[in-house]
Amino acid sequence: MSPMVTPRNLPQEIVQGIQSVVDAKPVTLHEPRFSGNEWVYLKECLDSTFVSSVGKFVDRFEDELAAFTGAKRAVAVVKGTAALHVSLLLAGVEAGDEVLLPALTFIATANAVSNCQATLHFVDREEHSLGMDAYPLRDYLSGTTEMCDGYCINRSTGRVIRAMEPMHTFVHPVNIEALLAVAHDFRLQLIEDAAESLGSTVGGRYTGTFGLMGTLSFNGNKTITTGGGGAILTNDLELGALAKHLTTTAKVPHRWNFLHDEVGYNYRLPNLNAALGCAQLEQLPGFLTEKCRLFDAYQASFADIPGVRLVAELAGCRSNYWLQALLLDESLADQRDAVLTPTNDAGLMTRPVWTLMHRLPMYSNTPKAALLVAESLERRLINIPSSSGLVPVKS
Amino acid sequence: MSPMVTPRNLPQEIVQGIQSVVDAKPVTLHEPRFSGNEWVYLKECLDSTFVSSVGKFVDRFEDELAAFTGAKRAVAVVKGTAALHVSLLLAGVEAGDEVLLPALTFIATANAVSNCQATLHFVDREEHSLGMDAYPLRDYLSGTTEMCDGYCINRSTGRVIRAMEPMHTFVHPVNIEALLAVAHDFRLQLIEDAAESLGSTVGGRYTGTFGLMGTLSFNGNKTITTGGGGAILTNDLELGALAKHLTTTAKVPHRWNFLHDEVGYNYRLPNLNAALGCAQLEQLPGFLTEKCRLFDAYQASFADIPGVRLVAELAGCRSNYWLQALLLDESLADQRDAVLTPTNDAGLMTRPVWTLMHRLPMYSNTPKAALLVAESLERRLINIPSSSGLVPVKS
Repeated sequence: MSPMVTPRNLPQEIVQGIQSVVDAKPVTLHEPRFSGNEWVYLKECLDSTFVSSVGKFVDRFEDELAAFTGAKRAVAVVKGTAALHVSLLLAGVEAGDEVLLPALTFIATANAVSNCQATLHFVDREEHSLGMDAYPLRDYLSGTTEMCDGYCINRSTGRVIRAMEPMHTFVHPVNIEALLAVAHDFRLQLIEDAAESLGSTVGGRYTGTFGLMGTLSFNGNKTITTGGGGAILTNDLELGALAKHLTTTAKVPHRWNFLHDEVGYNYRLPNLNAALGCAQLEQLPGFLTEKCRLFDAYQASFADIPGVRLVAELAGCRSNYWLQALLLDESLADQRDAVLTPTNDAGLMTRPVWTLMHRLPMYSNTPKAALLVAESLERRLINIPSSSGLVPVKS
Repeated sequence: MSPMVTPRNLPQEIVQGIQSVVDAKPVTLHEPRFSGNEWVYLKECLDSTFVSSVGKFVDRFEDELAAFTGAKRAVAVVKGTAALHVSLLLAGVEAGDEVLLPALTFIATANAVSNCQATLHFVDREEHSLGMDAYPLRDYLSGTTEMCDGYCINRSTGRVIRAMEPMHTFVHPVNIEALLAVAHDFRLQLIEDAAESLGSTVGGRYTGTFGLMGTLSFNGNKTITTGGGGAILTNDLELGALAKHLTTTAKVPHRWNFLHDEVGYNYRLPNLNAALGCAQLEQLPGFLTEKCRLFDAYQASFADIPGVRLVAELAGCRSNYWLQALLLDESLADQRDAVLTPTNDAGLMTRPVWTLMHRLPMYSNTPKAALLVAESLERRLINIPSSSGLVPVKS
């Protein structure tokens, strides 16, 4: 007589997998922690009255970001989208150009291109790093573009493909060296969207420092926060100075005159927000250690759940484990939504990955490569609670 | 025998005029004051961890701004420029349109138009209110435009003039009723740049609530500050909802899905900055009273200096006296720079008005009316120290 087989209850297994690691309920996907000098620095801001467009914390935050990442210059701005927008402009992206970006990304990566009046052009990701996949990209560009006067021209649209904007997703650096080689061969500028990946490295070097420019986000749900904010990283000091100029209304310094020498943007990070950032940055190494421990704990907890794996860092890379991500086997992909409801109902916040950009109404007619991996990842990825304090390091 | 005439020393007279009112040195042009619940609310933000894109202070700040100004809806954003940009977009300003604005303004008024890929079209101001002058504007439009299918077409350029963007400057509301009549007759949308004029009224009604939309700034140098920030005011609830949607990445609300239905902007004011704004707004009536007293004190102090007058509020209007402004007689205009140096050297911060927009390299070839008054004002205006705490109300 064959044994009775109890039907599998994947949602329940995942609820238990999370609960065995995370004690508290309800638990959000990611929340900031303010256990350092936040209050001291904010008070210093108020006492000095320098809360706005000038103040020592902006310079300090920029210097410390540069020191941490190894970039030659960091420019703090008001949002991550603003950092991308100005980086694309400085990379020469003009109205009517095309910019390559992953279809699987947060809306900011796309909107920044639209803000330049340029056209998006979606390409695929690879499963292991979740990153823009360099190898099919090379083939795709070889088959669909031609070089003309040093420009990469999309044969279908006749437009210049000016830049690529790979985005490091959740936990992983993309295969940046392979993408840089493609960018070089097709004369594309490479702007790294490192909004989520502060602290991640490739071969010991921090993400955001490989391309012409890289960008960070300090939204409230990121590894460190300024309330809202972002930064541009670059190793080109001249570009760094231009980024500063363009994000501060292109004002020419003068004791009292108001002279602006180009159309600029008021994107400067307020000193108040930079003060918060300075306090957070001091705690970043600790946050990263804790997030690594959380990954280990989840890894152990999910090891016995068949068909479900945690996205893990690759050889030669270090991940900041900003958001922990479960990847379901394709055979379980139809249960993604069935998992989201009971986990959220149980007070354990989970979410699917972003809707692919080419499915959004305003981007439905933009050029795109085959997006088979991105479409598969969209069906199978689930983010689970990821705050740095969930499994604190024991002293 | 005729008496000896001592040559006049205008810079010295002005230094003394300021010093007789302002005791402290050095004194800035305008600095914020944090004497209310700033600490309490910021600490509440940190303790709750809600510093970023969600949190109760954003909603509260918006509700209280609407209640104070009488607008049906206020939408808080990250900068005053962002408020203008989105207001112009919602007013239907498109790439290639023209927007009428004063040549005498801060760069934000102009950049917001450029951010819409529209063309600026400069018009003149009038001396008493410093505002966009409705009467020559009507004549100018009658002479240079024609109506075609309900659109106002610039005969020289063939472009649609879509909107006007009057800006309330320093202390004064513009003659808004006359401008609304021009806007109506020429089918122009009117967006009020009330960045500087929170608390100013015309006929008892607050600036920023007359046009299709109005915008405020809460930069550190404004009457109240959020560190950096702005707001959109409107009496059209549908437009208000669209403004909220467009400034929050056009995300369609859902428990976990990321669906965005148009190209949007990440312009939302962080909760941290809104918390500061709530505390500041509570003190606004007191700030306004103090600024009025400062005006009275300056008025008395400068009464005996010939050829120099303080710009004062007009009948039927109330000014917020954000920045106090001296206006030199034309005969003294050549001494403006001679006044700026010794006042600043004496630790009394002064500044001229902004360089007229059509003199800036990127705006030198834009369409413009005669700008005689703006050019005269540019030669003669000097802002003097204006912080609300300089002459506190005695209890």
